Amino acid sequence: MQSHYLTPLFSPNSIAMFGASERENSVGEVVFRNLLSSGFKGGIYPINPKHDKVQGQKAYKSIDAIGKPVDLAVVATPAKTIPAIVEASGQHGVKTMIILSAGFRESGPAGRRIEDRVVEVAKEFGIRFIGPNCLGLIRPDKGVNITFGNNNAKPGNLALVSQSGAICTAILDWAEVNDIGFSSVISTGIAADLDFGDYLDFLVSDPKTDSILMYVEGIKDARRFMSGLRAAARIKPVIVLKVGRHAAGAEASMSHTGALVGSDETFSAALSRSGVLRVETISQLFSAAKALSARSRVYGDKLAIITNGGGPGVMAADRASDLDIELAQFSDETVKALNKALPDVWSHGNPVDVIGDAPPERYRAAVDICLNDPEVDGAIVILTPQAMTEPDEVAKVLIELADQHKKPILTSWMGGKQVENARKLFNNAKLPSFRTLENAVDASHYLSSYQKNQRLLLQTPAKTSRRHVQPDVEGARLIIESALSEQRKVLTEPESFALLGAFRIHAVRNGIARSAKEALNESID
Amino acid sequence: MQSHYLTPLFSPNSIAMFGASERENSVGEVVFRNLLSSGFKGGIYPINPKHDKVQGQKAYKSIDAIGKPVDLAVVATPAKTIPAIVEASGQHGVKTMIILSAGFRESGPAGRRIEDRVVEVAKEFGIRFIGPNCLGLIRPDKGVNITFGNNNAKPGNLALVSQSGAICTAILDWAEVNDIGFSSVISTGIAADLDFGDYLDFLVSDPKTDSILMYVEGIKDARRFMSGLRAAARIKPVIVLKVGRHAAGAEASMSHTGALVGSDETFSAALSRSGVLRVETISQLFSAAKALSARSRVYGDKLAIITNGGGPGVMAADRASDLDIELAQFSDETVKALNKALPDVWSHGNPVDVIGDAPPERYRAAVDICLNDPEVDGAIVILTPQAMTEPDEVAKVLIELADQHKKPILTSWMGGKQVENARKLFNNAKLPSFRTLENAVDASHYLSSYQKNQRLLLQTPAKTSRRHVQPDVEGARLIIESALSEQRKVLTEPESFALLGAFRIHAVRNGIARSAKEALNESID
Repeated sequence: MQSHYLTPLFSPNSIAMFGASERENSVGEVVFRNLLSSGFKGGIYPINPKHDKVQGQKAYKSIDAIGKPVDLAVVATPAKTIPAIVEASGQHGVKTMIILSAGFRESGPAGRRIEDRVVEVAKEFGIRFIGPNCLGLIRPDKGVNITFGNNNAKPGNLALVSQSGAICTAILDWAEVNDIGFSSVISTGIAADLDFGDYLDFLVSDPKTDSILMYVEGIKDARRFMSGLRAAARIKPVIVLKVGRHAAGAEASMSHTGALVGSDETFSAALSRSGVLRVETISQLFSAAKALSARSRVYGDKLAIITNGGGPGVMAADRASDLDIELAQFSDETVKALNKALPDVWSHGNPVDVIGDAPPERYRAAVDICLNDPEVDGAIVILTPQAMTEPDEVAKVLIELADQHKKPILTSWMGGKQVENARKLFNNAKLPSFRTLENAVDASHYLSSYQKNQRLLLQTPAKTSRRHVQPDVEGARLIIESALSEQRKVLTEPESFALLGAFRIHAVRNGIARSAKEALNESID
Repeated sequence: MQSHYLTPLFSPNSIAMFGASERENSVGEVVFRNLLSSGFKGGIYPINPKHDKVQGQKAYKSIDAIGKPVDLAVVATPAKTIPAIVEASGQHGVKTMIILSAGFRESGPAGRRIEDRVVEVAKEFGIRFIGPNCLGLIRPDKGVNITFGNNNAKPGNLALVSQSGAICTAILDWAEVNDIGFSSVISTGIAADLDFGDYLDFLVSDPKTDSILMYVEGIKDARRFMSGLRAAARIKPVIVLKVGRHAAGAEASMSHTGALVGSDETFSAALSRSGVLRVETISQLFSAAKALSARSRVYGDKLAIITNGGGPGVMAADRASDLDIELAQFSDETVKALNKALPDVWSHGNPVDVIGDAPPERYRAAVDICLNDPEVDGAIVILTPQAMTEPDEVAKVLIELADQHKKPILTSWMGGKQVENARKLFNNAKLPSFRTLENAVDASHYLSSYQKNQRLLLQTPAKTSRRHVQPDVEGARLIIESALSEQRKVLTEPESFALLGAFRIHAVRNGIARSAKEALNESID
């Protein structure tokens, strides 16, 4: 990986901690304990003028006293002490910091003055910092856990950037039970310096990160944020949970982080033009992440639903209709093949009810036949634990099928005890599995929305709705501002076409295809 | 409990089973095994002409051979054998049956003819039956488990009536893990005889049943169904998950149970006029049930949200806005009291952010102060497992508070491992607890919707929307049809007022109050 201005923060060789402590349950004690126990291989230097040792480690009176270079300085001391700490760190050559402490703008005018001073000193020394008032940072594969919390994160391919530390703790605690791993967990705090744009910029070129999850309450530098999102979403799936969607929530958010909350509709439109997925709840955030981090990347609209119960089939079809997802119309060949493979009483249509007594091989036949139909873009497979059902064996069959097909298979094994182990099998095989069939259908919607958004990004900036005939001035502005924010005065070809499209000027259909197959797919569109 | 025509079905003294078998995993083997192992205290008589014993029990060649009265006959033999079985049962004096077998209308014209014959014979003998093509029946407190499945149900206060056997198995498997108990679980099958109306009629006077959950794909006798719902919903919360909301789903449903699916809007309007709650997913079904079976019955609109994290507060406020739930405006006294009880940096508004380091006593103070505000109708309390958080201790404090207040407290302890035990504490104390804050807000919405629907039921039949000024002919018709279906030619007083209201004729506000307090509540409305 190339060096980045945040490399010392995300991959430090040495960490100093101001305020490392032994006072039980103090921030300085918890964070330092987490850091010591997370397996970090570099130098760890507690700084505490009152003690010779902290948690068994030699303590230093000051950062000078360390006498060695420090990549990252962590601060857990009262706000008023921090300007001097930043200055001392700067003089020691520190380039990145994490400021955990509260007591800045969120606490009133006096805190605001301290914050201004901290920002000023940091700028002077070229220091970039996370926080203040944040939970901290976890980089599991570097053995770095610098957080004020009781959970660590397992290594994985998701990056989480959250404006709320409380949300981080809830997600981490949930992820531990659900075997979800992370490449990075970043709590931004009030983001006096580093903000979403910086983190996106780093994560997009971080080889450990496959998808980026963001919890957003408010944006300060909208242009920077959108530009970062557009760049990131070209390369990796970016999923944003933006809260404060309504006046009441927005008010709450303002008191919380002092963040200004913009018009929600504008934000949503801007997001989808950036190729980003927006979700509304934490469980949707993870459904989307599960779907997008799965192995399949051929996404489309038209679903086959395979189920061993009529009721769940109806519910899945309902949910698909809610989301404007089409169920595939099977070809005559497909129906013939299903007639041959299934009992006479099968549903003779989509959803495919393989009947309550379906053994694993009947599931295999049905899913295989459906996925071979060119009209089918992907399958949702549902299982209810009926008397003859073999949840684990059917799961194994699907894991094999997923290797043979490029189209995505999403699963929902409904129930509790009887399906628990099959869910683990799916997790291990990276086959997306959802507790509720609604989550599975939602996830399939995310897959196809992601694909659509990606196309929008390359083609026209406006929603391709028949209702829109007005010129899309806002969209045009976004394209130009985005280029300007990248210091460019020349638009790329796709951007130029998009600009024409924004004013409803028809042009030859265009897009980027990375393979012959993609080119074919684009031309169908 | 008074005797009811379904008493021999739901509380049998003796059960005979046609087709009880030892052939592994056959319907006759699984069902008979479940029955034997469920603790039933009455007589159990397997009927199998080929064997002297079935699963260790003396078997009978025919029902005659039993030589004792049989309350309930269960059938798991091929469809074509069933008309003769019903006849033999009728001659033996059997009054209720469960027909598990498939092969009736859902399998084509030949099956339809067999079904017609079965119905005819049953009528002749006055036999009422569940099914055909159903999972069966569970009555946990009677030790009756007559189902073709691998799960039993624990005793509890929910009744489940489902048109899908697959949904039953999924719910039972889920309920086992989540410690949810049932008074009755009924799989209706294709409902050739007994249908929702009959089950509602029984369950409404069943003292073990506090709330009734229904999974509905289609209704055959709409008038009967609505009349049953209206009667039941006057007495107990009734929650309906009706699927086939869209054309695609409805089509799937038709192939599944052969049920006709009506216009969804009509159905939804009719439901809310019956005082019934409609939900769309299985998790909503249980959220609603949890909320409604909780101890508090004072429901209102205006919520206080108490949280130890700003982010979750914002998300809860968002969800409340989605559902048109108002957050309470605190009185000056309440704000003053909160200022005294909470750290300076609390959110100074609703949602109440008690700050990440909140100890149990701070939670107690905040919730207590909020619930004492007359503007507050109920509280949603959210916890994220931060470093200093004591999830179990805060839960215990809330359980105490719930005893002291009549207003409902709904909880969402977010996360996984750290909050697992607190969720159990809530379950044991019957304090509604939800994995996601969205489910908690939804549940609060169900509480207030239930209350609103109940008022609609007693007052005007139309939605009290300002947009409606047209006479509500459909509503008026429902009131009259409902009375007619109960063989009444005189309307009750509330019905008469409702009828006037349907034609926008103003009358003195009226309603039924069962206590002085309720009378006061009504007059505020």
